[in-house]
Amino acid sequence: MQIAKVIGDVVATRKDRNLTGIALLIVQPLTPDGQPVGRPLVAVDAVGAGVGEHVFFVRGKEASFPFYPAEPPVDAGIVGIIDHWDMEET
Amino acid sequence: MQIAKVIGDVVATRKDRNLTGIALLIVQPLTPDGQPVGRPLVAVDAVGAGVGEHVFFVRGKEASFPFYPAEPPVDAGIVGIIDHWDMEET
Amino acid sequence: MQIAKVIGDVVATRKDRNLTGIALLIVQPLTPDGQPVGRPLVAVDAVGAGVGEHVFFVRGKEASFPFYPAEPPVDAGIVGIIDHWDMEET
Amino acid sequence: MQIAKVIGDVVATRKDRNLTGIALLIVQPLTPDGQPVGRPLVAVDAVGAGVGEHVFFVRGKEASFPFYPAEPPVDAGIVGIIDHWDMEET
Amino acid sequence: MQIAKVIGDVVATRKDRNLTGIALLIVQPLTPDGQPVGRPLVAVDAVGAGVGEHVFFVRGKEASFPFYPAEPPVDAGIVGIIDHWDMEET
Repeated sequence: MQIAKVIGDVVATRKDRNLTGIALLIVQPLTPDGQPVGRPLVAVDAVGAGVGEHVFFVRGKEASFPFYPAEPPVDAGIVGIIDHWDMEET
Repeated sequence: MQIAKVIGDVVATRKDRNLTGIALLIVQPLTPDGQPVGRPLVAVDAVGAGVGEHVFFVRGKEASFPFYPAEPPVDAGIVGIIDHWDMEET
Repeated sequence: MQIAKVIGDVVATRKDRNLTGIALLIVQPLTPDGQPVGRPLVAVDAVGAGVGEHVFFVRGKEASFPFYPAEPPVDAGIVGIIDHWDMEET
Repeated sequence: MQIAKVIGDVVATRKDRNLTGIALLIVQPLTPDGQPVGRPLVAVDAVGAGVGEHVFFVRGKEASFPFYPAEPPVDAGIVGIIDHWDMEET
Repeated sequence: MQIAKVIGDVVATRKDRNLTGIALLIVQPLTPDGQPVGRPLVAVDAVGAGVGEHVFFVRGKEASFPFYPAEPPVDAGIVGIIDHWDMEET
């Protein structure tokens, strides 16, 4: 999984019917130092995250698990909202 | 998923028989700013997208879900046509 | 999927038994402009492609679908031979 | 799989319910020379690893196997704590 | 799949129990010209490969297929030892 910040959302009327009612958010992956890293992507939201929140998301078919028994065609999904994270001293 | 623009299509007569009748489009991934990012790829189309449209696509086996119970051997598929997307102010 | 050119083949006598009789080709991914992009990889062939041909291949477990009910341990497979591809004017 | 060092952890109260009780650690992938390589990521822990330990982790749905029959939505998981690794002379 | 050379091995006493008895080798991916490319990774061995040998390996859950019905949590596995490979003249 990766740490990310929710930075936007996507509106699509014409889409696969298994995506109906599922929020599509734009997330920016972050390093543990909180810096943007890599390209933003579109993730479905399984936990009620909002723009500006720090989350962690999962890639792959696993992103559809929270919607079981529905199987939306998704490859990235927010599965947790982060309270905080800690790094060891180095 | 990633935001992308449809920029072309592929014609292939000799192909796996489970691909028969499925449109093969070339998509260019975009950043949320609308800039091309990463290499174009070939995606199947499950929503009737056309060249020039903004879409979002899914990678992996999930790309075959819209064709169930058929299981075409695909790893990228367009699953939505984007009306618009919004970014938070930063 | 990605557009690629077949540039070689691999011979392996000692291999997983589910790979017996399956052609192992080396493919070079191409941009839509026909330029090499990214590293060559080894793909199984489900459509009778030959060295020098333009093909498109799929990554992931999907590469094993054409061999069903056999489940060879593969992660890349050629699933179509390209007649031609077209790009929009930009 | 990749060799990595555990460098931190993530605390998330609001998350997919199938993640309840599963440790979320931050791991830094390493080269065989022990140098950091690539971006840190969040992995679930199936073997009781702690911050500072060298581990190897698996990517993809496979990361959920140790939690079977539960199917947490995860894409990276620590599956072994490394005693040591050896490289051939070159 | 990718061509690679076996360059080392990993010893781990504490690991997922489905990994018991499975060899963990370090492989360096190679270009078709035999040059190292990309980072080394840890792969399980399903064909009896040894350090110094040229092999091809598969990524993803497919790496666990040779161990069926066991389902070790792995994402890379050696599935063939290469006799030789050939490239077209260019």
